Amino acid sequence: MITKESLINDLTEVRSKSPLVHNITNYVVMNTTANALLAIGASPVMAHSVDEVEDIVKIASSLVINIGTLSKNWVDAMIKAGKAAKEKGIPVVLDPVGAGATNYRTETSLQIIRECKPGVIRGNASEIMALVNEKSNTKGVDSTASSDSALDVAKILAKDTGAVIVISGPVDYVIDQQSVIKVKNGSSMMSRVTGLGCTATALVGAFIAVNKNFVLASAHAMSVMGIAGELAAKKSEGPGTMQIHFLDALYKLSEKEIIQHLNVE
Amino acid sequence: MITKESLINDLTEVRSKSPLVHNITNYVVMNTTANALLAIGASPVMAHSVDEVEDIVKIASSLVINIGTLSKNWVDAMIKAGKAAKEKGIPVVLDPVGAGATNYRTETSLQIIRECKPGVIRGNASEIMALVNEKSNTKGVDSTASSDSALDVAKILAKDTGAVIVISGPVDYVIDQQSVIKVKNGSSMMSRVTGLGCTATALVGAFIAVNKNFVLASAHAMSVMGIAGELAAKKSEGPGTMQIHFLDALYKLSEKEIIQHLNVE
Amino acid sequence: MITKESLINDLTEVRSKSPLVHNITNYVVMNTTANALLAIGASPVMAHSVDEVEDIVKIASSLVINIGTLSKNWVDAMIKAGKAAKEKGIPVVLDPVGAGATNYRTETSLQIIRECKPGVIRGNASEIMALVNEKSNTKGVDSTASSDSALDVAKILAKDTGAVIVISGPVDYVIDQQSVIKVKNGSSMMSRVTGLGCTATALVGAFIAVNKNFVLASAHAMSVMGIAGELAAKKSEGPGTMQIHFLDALYKLSEKEIIQHLNVE
Repeated sequence: MITKESLINDLTEVRSKSPLVHNITNYVVMNTTANALLAIGASPVMAHSVDEVEDIVKIASSLVINIGTLSKNWVDAMIKAGKAAKEKGIPVVLDPVGAGATNYRTETSLQIIRECKPGVIRGNASEIMALVNEKSNTKGVDSTASSDSALDVAKILAKDTGAVIVISGPVDYVIDQQSVIKVKNGSSMMSRVTGLGCTATALVGAFIAVNKNFVLASAHAMSVMGIAGELAAKKSEGPGTMQIHFLDALYKLSEKEIIQHLNVE
Repeated sequence: MITKESLINDLTEVRSKSPLVHNITNYVVMNTTANALLAIGASPVMAHSVDEVEDIVKIASSLVINIGTLSKNWVDAMIKAGKAAKEKGIPVVLDPVGAGATNYRTETSLQIIRECKPGVIRGNASEIMALVNEKSNTKGVDSTASSDSALDVAKILAKDTGAVIVISGPVDYVIDQQSVIKVKNGSSMMSRVTGLGCTATALVGAFIAVNKNFVLASAHAMSVMGIAGELAAKKSEGPGTMQIHFLDALYKLSEKEIIQHLNVE
Repeated sequence: MITKESLINDLTEVRSKSPLVHNITNYVVMNTTANALLAIGASPVMAHSVDEVEDIVKIASSLVINIGTLSKNWVDAMIKAGKAAKEKGIPVVLDPVGAGATNYRTETSLQIIRECKPGVIRGNASEIMALVNEKSNTKGVDSTASSDSALDVAKILAKDTGAVIVISGPVDYVIDQQSVIKVKNGSSMMSRVTGLGCTATALVGAFIAVNKNFVLASAHAMSVMGIAGELAAKKSEGPGTMQIHFLDALYKLSEKEIIQHLNVE
């Protein structure tokens, strides 16, 4: 189980080590996730060409693969980078955006899981379910299933893949073969800003770069997301102001705020 | 003619049905338009690979095609998605960004019109004129012609294509073969934020998803843009704050604000 | 040496002429740099297809080439556009993002320099050093070298290429074969917002469009960045609010603010 102390410790590590996080991600969120990684203290790099992904991933502390706007060349690069990461022991987190919405997304996600062995897979309930039961339906990239209903399926996925599974939603679940951590922080306003799911995945990338216990690292990342989201929502009138206060909150997040707000079980 | 009641009705529909809007759009505005669609209550999905656009468009309620940063693979996907939408009866809006600036943009726009039969075409005056008179000149992606001067040309385009034509500018015109609606809402600050034209097109995508009368739906979308722009401009000191207050205004837009501000004829 | 008067003069030129700046840039910053160019009064256009870059660059007043998320098709377009610009006498600025981090980035930068003869090259210290000594190491896209240490190397690069070299950092250096201008404006918060280096390059694009003296134009652009950054930082609580106040500051930047804050030597 994570604690206030373990979270503060890992956040301090991210801020002091400023790990290089290699992102192969979607066009919609590149700017948002780069800014979130900078705000939390990590050092983002975006690179997706097959001509350089292996060189970039070798100098990185973690790799984030996000299939949100996938196409053939990008998938080739994801696989190439993921394999290089696996070989080098560099931790990988996969965001299977829209898995279940099209066969292409589901199959690509499963291929990446097979070939790159990500240490963490983070998605919404629909996406996680689609990775186990390919018949599951997703409406676009937003979840149509509840996190609760995905819990049992996620345990199967954790067992089959050896990965830590993170299901985000009103409550976030961090699941491995032994345990489930529930992160209850967050705000409903977060679902009205595009790419905050992808941002969660990017922050997982920052935390697995400094902590090899992927369950704890993932729960730390989701807690940071949730607390920053709560703090930002209080200052926001809508999804526009939410975006900017969220980045400020990540940047300023203090021990005191963590102690006051962390809500996990 | 649209009325306060018709606008409120359609906005309520968008918010309650949360239609899935499939966007094949340009890199510059992907984040902005996804956020605007979320703010107004729709559900955006961005997908551009020929390997999945047909699957995505089939589950969507409308398709937005925007050629702002076009290249061969993307045009192939636009055509493929547009044809699938036409076959399925899913409404399509086209944004011919920069038509007239290069032959490539003009020809691509005309090809999409021919092969995909968009129900609505929204552009600035220069772009609309370029679709009828290919000799028209555009300076980059900003209009060098007045909306007034494009009005007669737009009527020809409406007749030739059967589409509703929207010309945006200080006054927005919504034109079909029978009528012209003028939407006078808006703020000059809107032209200093990149992608608000593209955002208007995305909102048209949200409204044609809930109202098959494309003239009314388009006028509703342009009114929502204009009113939110006016409200945001009042709170803004420049184009930075404008962006975020605009998203907040879309999100919060109330019946009372619509009743107070709607300015159409 | 630049003066308050020369800066005010060029800024007024940018605002009154609204030069068309053609950007072939990276996915992360497209929105940010388009907004910065609009805020300062220029007219941005993003276009990267080999099928149209020559047509776009011919109507542009300057060309910005930024390799931040390069891949084969994009590099082909950069070279094609850069050669067309060289032929037509349209000024070019190159941002060699991540040069030194991978061989691919270093080699691509050197190829663009050889074939397109950019008038200005702007990078951080690590990137500039990598262009002279290809063995130099960069940590991703953030600099690991000090600007001071890059100064001598930059003078060599200026001599070898005939380009004006801009090194950004806590102090920005604008270097040609004869002189060095130091721009001391800026704020440490700027390094926590993604793409402000790329934004500096885009603003150089706006200023070289109105002033053929690339040393002065580059120093003007860096001063505007720095002053706007200082003004924005005073109003900001973190990198989120920083982004929007920065765009507002660019938009509002007044003679009085320039006179009060300009800090060059």
